[in-house]
Amino acid sequence: MRIKNFTDVTATKIDNDQARGISARVVIGREDGAENFCMRVFQLAPGGCTPKHAHAWEHEIFVHEGDGGIFGNGAWHPFLRGTVVLVEADEEHQIRNSGTETLTFVCLVPSTAPEL
Amino acid sequence: MRIKNFTDVTATKIDNDQARGISARVVIGREDGAENFCMRVFQLAPGGCTPKHAHAWEHEIFVHEGDGGIFGNGAWHPFLRGTVVLVEADEEHQIRNSGTETLTFVCLVPSTAPEL
Repeated sequence: MRIKNFTDVTATKIDNDQARGISARVVIGREDGAENFCMRVFQLAPGGCTPKHAHAWEHEIFVHEGDGGIFGNGAWHPFLRGTVVLVEADEEHQIRNSGTETLTFVCLVPSTAPEL
Repeated sequence: MRIKNFTDVTATKIDNDQARGISARVVIGREDGAENFCMRVFQLAPGGCTPKHAHAWEHEIFVHEGDGGIFGNGAWHPFLRGTVVLVEADEEHQIRNSGTETLTFVCLVPSTAPEL
């Protein structure tokens, strides 16, 4: 059994033209012995966003806290505390923080995908 | 893309000799098109607990809110907002709510396991 608080994991900061204000953590991954899927926790600062992109693996997402939106199927949808999302393989998506507090969400990928 | 709030999914209530005060929801599963792993959300009432058991698949857990403990490796460990846990296959484990509010956690299993 591996137990930790997600905040104890060192965050990777991402801030460029397409992805702004992101702190990303692999909290349960291959190094922990997770063989089938990988848990990451993302935090977006107010105004932050992930890139609008698509890839060959799915996401399973749970919103822990904050206020934002997710783009998919050609429109933006509310992305709030308690929202869950399945982003299917090859589906274009983007997440943004439209609130005034940090947006924190859990995002899982299969172990065939890059962990970060 | 499938988007919902976890509270919009019908809960299965579990209350017996070994598992008390549980509301369990499959929030992203086979019916949604999730092929590799399944997201469930569990809520334990104050005093509630999951059974002490082991099985042939792993859990990846994220604690959304509340105050409790998880048993593993022969001892109880704090299980609080932001705690993440990898329970490995065949490892005995149990979760309890030792607080005064509902304990809510996300728990993922590979698609080879029962969804609930």
